[in-house]
Amino acid sequence: MNDETIRVGLIGSGYMGKSFSLAVGAAETLFGLPVALVKEMVATSNETSASNAAAELGFVRWTADWRELVADPNVDVIINCTPNHLHRDIALAALAAPKPILSEKPLGRTKAEALDMVQAADKAGVANMAGYTYMKNPATRLAKEILDSGEIGRVFHFRGLHIEDYLSDPSLPITWRLQKAQAGSGAVGDLCHIINMAHYLCGEITDVVADSSIVIPERPDGTPTGTSTVDTDDQTHILCRFESGALGYLELSRVASGRKMGLGYEINGSDGTIVFDQARMSELKLFTTKDSPDRQGFRTILLGPEHSDYGYFNSGPGHGLGYNDMVAIEVRDFILSVLDGRPVWPNFADAYHTEEVLDAAIQSTETGKWARVGS
Amino acid sequence: MNDETIRVGLIGSGYMGKSFSLAVGAAETLFGLPVALVKEMVATSNETSASNAAAELGFVRWTADWRELVADPNVDVIINCTPNHLHRDIALAALAAPKPILSEKPLGRTKAEALDMVQAADKAGVANMAGYTYMKNPATRLAKEILDSGEIGRVFHFRGLHIEDYLSDPSLPITWRLQKAQAGSGAVGDLCHIINMAHYLCGEITDVVADSSIVIPERPDGTPTGTSTVDTDDQTHILCRFESGALGYLELSRVASGRKMGLGYEINGSDGTIVFDQARMSELKLFTTKDSPDRQGFRTILLGPEHSDYGYFNSGPGHGLGYNDMVAIEVRDFILSVLDGRPVWPNFADAYHTEEVLDAAIQSTETGKWARVGS
Amino acid sequence: MNDETIRVGLIGSGYMGKSFSLAVGAAETLFGLPVALVKEMVATSNETSASNAAAELGFVRWTADWRELVADPNVDVIINCTPNHLHRDIALAALAAPKPILSEKPLGRTKAEALDMVQAADKAGVANMAGYTYMKNPATRLAKEILDSGEIGRVFHFRGLHIEDYLSDPSLPITWRLQKAQAGSGAVGDLCHIINMAHYLCGEITDVVADSSIVIPERPDGTPTGTSTVDTDDQTHILCRFESGALGYLELSRVASGRKMGLGYEINGSDGTIVFDQARMSELKLFTTKDSPDRQGFRTILLGPEHSDYGYFNSGPGHGLGYNDMVAIEVRDFILSVLDGRPVWPNFADAYHTEEVLDAAIQSTETGKWARVGS
Amino acid sequence: MNDETIRVGLIGSGYMGKSFSLAVGAAETLFGLPVALVKEMVATSNETSASNAAAELGFVRWTADWRELVADPNVDVIINCTPNHLHRDIALAALAAPKPILSEKPLGRTKAEALDMVQAADKAGVANMAGYTYMKNPATRLAKEILDSGEIGRVFHFRGLHIEDYLSDPSLPITWRLQKAQAGSGAVGDLCHIINMAHYLCGEITDVVADSSIVIPERPDGTPTGTSTVDTDDQTHILCRFESGALGYLELSRVASGRKMGLGYEINGSDGTIVFDQARMSELKLFTTKDSPDRQGFRTILLGPEHSDYGYFNSGPGHGLGYNDMVAIEVRDFILSVLDGRPVWPNFADAYHTEEVLDAAIQSTETGKWARVGS
Repeated sequence: MNDETIRVGLIGSGYMGKSFSLAVGAAETLFGLPVALVKEMVATSNETSASNAAAELGFVRWTADWRELVADPNVDVIINCTPNHLHRDIALAALAAPKPILSEKPLGRTKAEALDMVQAADKAGVANMAGYTYMKNPATRLAKEILDSGEIGRVFHFRGLHIEDYLSDPSLPITWRLQKAQAGSGAVGDLCHIINMAHYLCGEITDVVADSSIVIPERPDGTPTGTSTVDTDDQTHILCRFESGALGYLELSRVASGRKMGLGYEINGSDGTIVFDQARMSELKLFTTKDSPDRQGFRTILLGPEHSDYGYFNSGPGHGLGYNDMVAIEVRDFILSVLDGRPVWPNFADAYHTEEVLDAAIQSTETGKWARVGS
Repeated sequence: MNDETIRVGLIGSGYMGKSFSLAVGAAETLFGLPVALVKEMVATSNETSASNAAAELGFVRWTADWRELVADPNVDVIINCTPNHLHRDIALAALAAPKPILSEKPLGRTKAEALDMVQAADKAGVANMAGYTYMKNPATRLAKEILDSGEIGRVFHFRGLHIEDYLSDPSLPITWRLQKAQAGSGAVGDLCHIINMAHYLCGEITDVVADSSIVIPERPDGTPTGTSTVDTDDQTHILCRFESGALGYLELSRVASGRKMGLGYEINGSDGTIVFDQARMSELKLFTTKDSPDRQGFRTILLGPEHSDYGYFNSGPGHGLGYNDMVAIEVRDFILSVLDGRPVWPNFADAYHTEEVLDAAIQSTETGKWARVGS
Repeated sequence: MNDETIRVGLIGSGYMGKSFSLAVGAAETLFGLPVALVKEMVATSNETSASNAAAELGFVRWTADWRELVADPNVDVIINCTPNHLHRDIALAALAAPKPILSEKPLGRTKAEALDMVQAADKAGVANMAGYTYMKNPATRLAKEILDSGEIGRVFHFRGLHIEDYLSDPSLPITWRLQKAQAGSGAVGDLCHIINMAHYLCGEITDVVADSSIVIPERPDGTPTGTSTVDTDDQTHILCRFESGALGYLELSRVASGRKMGLGYEINGSDGTIVFDQARMSELKLFTTKDSPDRQGFRTILLGPEHSDYGYFNSGPGHGLGYNDMVAIEVRDFILSVLDGRPVWPNFADAYHTEEVLDAAIQSTETGKWARVGS
Repeated sequence: MNDETIRVGLIGSGYMGKSFSLAVGAAETLFGLPVALVKEMVATSNETSASNAAAELGFVRWTADWRELVADPNVDVIINCTPNHLHRDIALAALAAPKPILSEKPLGRTKAEALDMVQAADKAGVANMAGYTYMKNPATRLAKEILDSGEIGRVFHFRGLHIEDYLSDPSLPITWRLQKAQAGSGAVGDLCHIINMAHYLCGEITDVVADSSIVIPERPDGTPTGTSTVDTDDQTHILCRFESGALGYLELSRVASGRKMGLGYEINGSDGTIVFDQARMSELKLFTTKDSPDRQGFRTILLGPEHSDYGYFNSGPGHGLGYNDMVAIEVRDFILSVLDGRPVWPNFADAYHTEEVLDAAIQSTETGKWARVGS
């Protein structure tokens, strides 16, 4: 790393690995970054996949040992998109170097793992960021600006959903996501984007009561007739209280038939309401009581160059952003923080609140009682 | 009451009074009823309003004493649309006569009042019905048929909302709806349509945990500067469990800016999902996994003559039903039950479950614990 | 007819006959009319149907001869909802009496028939109205107010559709609507609501060029294997110029699969745009450039008590109106015009412009040239 | 150009220049292309902008003379995104080399210029493609598959719009797009995507009749008070006939307030209907008469990995594609055609039909008569 170049090391080459590679490749042209980004090295779990990943994703070098990548003197910053059980160890190694790290959500499998990461980040004093990609959508950024400006007044209620159907089909086999030992939790952890989003938009959550269920308790295990037991939640829903006094509801499901990107929210305030649906990611709905009574209605704001970051991608509103464009903004935010230490959302400490809420929610499903977040 | 005529007595002449009068006037032509309905007598709280109501709503006679109406030998059946605190007494008088009664929701102010009404109805053995108008929408009837047929499989989750903004404006003065003594509860009771709808669609609810808040604690009291304290909830939300094992969420608000008729639900099942929004009352959205994977999507079914009751109103789909059309179906259902004893939804016993859920939810907001429904 | 009562004679008892009967029955209560409406007499084409209609629709008397109804001294006003080929003769008889008449659209089968009706109305000097029900929707009335107020500035373009699919199925048999001799024209005449709506909203049309096609040229004739030739258009579309200088497009189809009530418009002006879809009849979409650039968007105005006529039906916005509610407004407008001579939209003269546009469009499809309206 | 590398020369560095640069940078990783793409050289109109463009867009070399770029032996293929008046000359030079060329739409300013390009392409025998980016959206590709498979039967009607409001504001100054000499035409040419789309989806157009208007005839010319006359259409609309017998309507506007990406279509067939709106670019609406009558409705298909090309970008449906993703597909199609000669949509000959329709439409607005396409 010098004034002109930042060399990126990527750990993990699955779905998010490809998205991050594209983002690293595009960020300079998109945003006019003051440094060049180099795809220096990629690490995966074995030599074949690692050498393939280097070829396919355009990295200069590869390794089957992530520790080697972290230690490599030519790797300046780390992007980690491995499964949850590796998050803590990789982050701790990177921060010990110390090297800046962007780590896929959730922070760890448990609150304890997450806390280790936050403490390491505090000590390291380098850029650190958790990969909550959807927070980078200009539509949600606009929602935040509207909330912060007081346009919809005092917030009374937040309803947030992240529901999908990727595990609706009972014939889908067991994976690491379905087993507590590796994933930590089920839908509630995998789809915790909405928890982080609630935090980003409406502030800290103080109390939760939650309920969950496993609707498909056995899954094929890959043998002709064998099955394995699922021990993580297929769906969890949560009542919560924000520090501000607002009430909140969070719903997370991986078995909501027909919902492919059911991430969204409705926020009711004293002077208006905001509604968002990630499946229509370049639209934000706004109702304001400031319109005259006979002309009031939810308006659909089509994101455009008037709104933050959108203008980097397209000349006109309605042209539309896609998923990978959010990843590019995410990488841009990370790199700028690396360069000049500016804050990012969410750094490890911000993301830790998500872990605390998650932890309290899981506790609550077990005890059947309201749980205090952070206790 | 004879084979050819049923003479209706109406108590209350406000908003619902007008709708019921229109419904009584239209039902014979609309549905080809085997009897004529006569608007025999109307009762309100004073002589002026009663005589005006008779003239405006087309009733033959009027009284300022509802007991007189109930006792009148020429009144065959009672429709009661007075404020909540009169529901119990009027129902008990009518059922003692015994005369069939259609009584506006909720049954009473409290579970105890409601229980009195159910017991009186059991004893009387005449037609009795609670006024949950929205249950009569052919779209919700279609949802019920889809659920009962198994088309969307086993139900995993029900999310039901009834959110409006009729009390969002803090300058609106105190009314009976805002005071516990008269209304029993706030949004949770006034908007309990969604509780009844959850029951109608997905069966009985066994457990709830709820939270609520009063966001505008003082309202003008009508004097130049005086205010009165609001002691009923502006918003309540509830996690619940159905007897079937499904999870549920219910949200009720009278301060959800921009929501005018925010009554609706999403029901996720193993093989599909149903979505409904009363503000678009002649549409039902259905997702089914039976469509081929590359052609799956939520389809918007426009209600039409293929669906129950719709054909009585219009020749074609898309012509659209309105609020008063649902009231007409409600009156039709009541009259048919009067004639031949057929079941209606909801009779007092069905509606009592709504009261039990309400009661458990209010309990839960006070204790901060899960509450068992009916205990 | 006296100060207290208007006695209605209805000719035709099909779909619209039922809707008009309901409207006559409800108008007094709905609108607080200063007179009572009496369902005096109904006429249909034979004795059985006429006596059934009287029983089902609640008329005091019946006849199988419409001339008898027109001549009857106890019939004060006429509502005519017979097929197109009877419109002219009935109107001429009623106006000769003279008795006020509300006559279903279109005026006649041809421009010549329509002109006879206009001239008879001029001479008679009594209330006359053509039955363009959709013009009575408060949403379209709101669109007119917005246009007249200049809120969206100078109108550049009007796109109006009335597309349905009631004849998409090729197995549907020949009816009077499919034969020129009885219907005058096909989709273009049957769905001419959109032409009248264009006129109502944007003023007179001066020039048209049109194209049409018959996509199902043979239909079953009711015999086991026989077919009849269709000689009316299944779809017609029209470019037009308004007197104001605005450009317009009109599309009319009875074979647009999936479109059940595809009546709607988009109007682009210098300062905004209005969009309406009759299938969501209680919503109007408005875009205005007066909103700040980063908050602009199409807003969905939910009709409510703030908007004309809506308040007669329901207490709150979002409760929704239905098709029959528009018919009630139509009857109210007619009756008020009978009472005090106030103008209605559309009277026969207004509706004649629709016939002229229709005639010019049909001409244009035959000559392949632009046609001057009214020439 | 060798087996491993294709070196790209880009002419023009405006909005599309940036999009093409991103696409060239991403295509290899996105699609797993068998060759590497090198951003070899960029040409703009002067040295400053050219050297800036090279730095910002990541090109190795730059020039202020496009002829130099075309002649450069290290440039293998050309992407041209200059204003319309340069399209012909650049294409002719590239094809004379001969070098493959992807040239922004429209082909030329006039049909004559376009014909020169087609003839040069025929002679050159190298890959040639016109830049109709929206044709690359997987949603429109799905529409084409549905049409080709016969799923919605015989097509009766195509309604296509491309309406935007980028010139609604009368204070916007004169640009090359507003002057015939440089642009050839106004909205009709600039937004001719919809003409190409009609062709792609429904086949050739044989006849048109059109109308247009200039609604803001004078624009500021950059001097304090001066104005210039606009001589290109602000809006044009067209009735057309397809070779298949289907009727069509095309609407093109740059003054449709509130429409930002109003590109879309509705296609009615004997067995169903397709509806698409580019502002919701990852959704396609489908109605099919094959669903049972009481379950029919427009379904919203959310594009996903089941559909062509989508899977290259994201793991799941609903994640969403953006504008630049379509440009990437466009570049991929061009490069594959360069590599193995496979057909692309649209090559110059395909795009020439768009020019012919455009030309006939402009003719028709001048003569006031139907015009035969290609005559």
